[in-house]
Amino acid sequence: MPTNSDCIFCKIVAGELPARIVREDERTIAFMDIAPATYGHTLVIPRSHSRDLLEIEQADLQAVAHAGQLVAQRAKERLGADGVNLINSCGAAAWQTVFHFHLHVIPRYSDDPLRLPWVPAQGDPDEIATAAAQLIG
Amino acid sequence: MPTNSDCIFCKIVAGELPARIVREDERTIAFMDIAPATYGHTLVIPRSHSRDLLEIEQADLQAVAHAGQLVAQRAKERLGADGVNLINSCGAAAWQTVFHFHLHVIPRYSDDPLRLPWVPAQGDPDEIATAAAQLIG
Repeated sequence: MPTNSDCIFCKIVAGELPARIVREDERTIAFMDIAPATYGHTLVIPRSHSRDLLEIEQADLQAVAHAGQLVAQRAKERLGADGVNLINSCGAAAWQTVFHFHLHVIPRYSDDPLRLPWVPAQGDPDEIATAAAQLIG
Repeated sequence: MPTNSDCIFCKIVAGELPARIVREDERTIAFMDIAPATYGHTLVIPRSHSRDLLEIEQADLQAVAHAGQLVAQRAKERLGADGVNLINSCGAAAWQTVFHFHLHVIPRYSDDPLRLPWVPAQGDPDEIATAAAQLIG
């Protein structure tokens, strides 16, 4: 299994750093984020080291997605969350700070203070078309 | 395949509403968000109707995750994105507005204006411990 001796999440997987693990299976572990966005904020990671979304193997990505779904279900059932956000950050420009793939599971509450500054509004159709053309295929 | 006649994303899957589709496979389609957070913002959805993360079938979730990864790769390679955020919103409290499961693929650029207001800061250890205890098991 790939590991990276400089990676704090690999150290958590190896039991060399403490973490409040709430779920584990053959491929993943889920543990509490130490700087939670909301009550119950959890991280799901593959045991095997991969840097980010562009590097992670299919089997690990699928296992992480499944584990995230199960943790979200628990947040609803056990924490009384009204909703859940899943967030993955790939690259420093996307706020990734630990370079071992991780999925944020962020329970949401109708009165929580978390807000995205992005207010959906009609986009520029030409710009959308240009981007679509670059992405098609 | 489950469909919902009131669902705008089911109408996109059926070809009854227009969308700029950039990728499709047996289980998923990916199309441009009409109110993009950043240049290239794409949605990946399962063809089969499910309301949200708590309802989606395993095979669909895995197919969506894989498609999201492939779209992210394209955003890096073709749009020159410096990073990518994947976001799923489950429930109105988590900003879900269309109740057909969808994964946002949001390309990020070092100079883009997107900001989360959540500034990571050390959390309350007791509160984290309480949430962990509720989630374990």
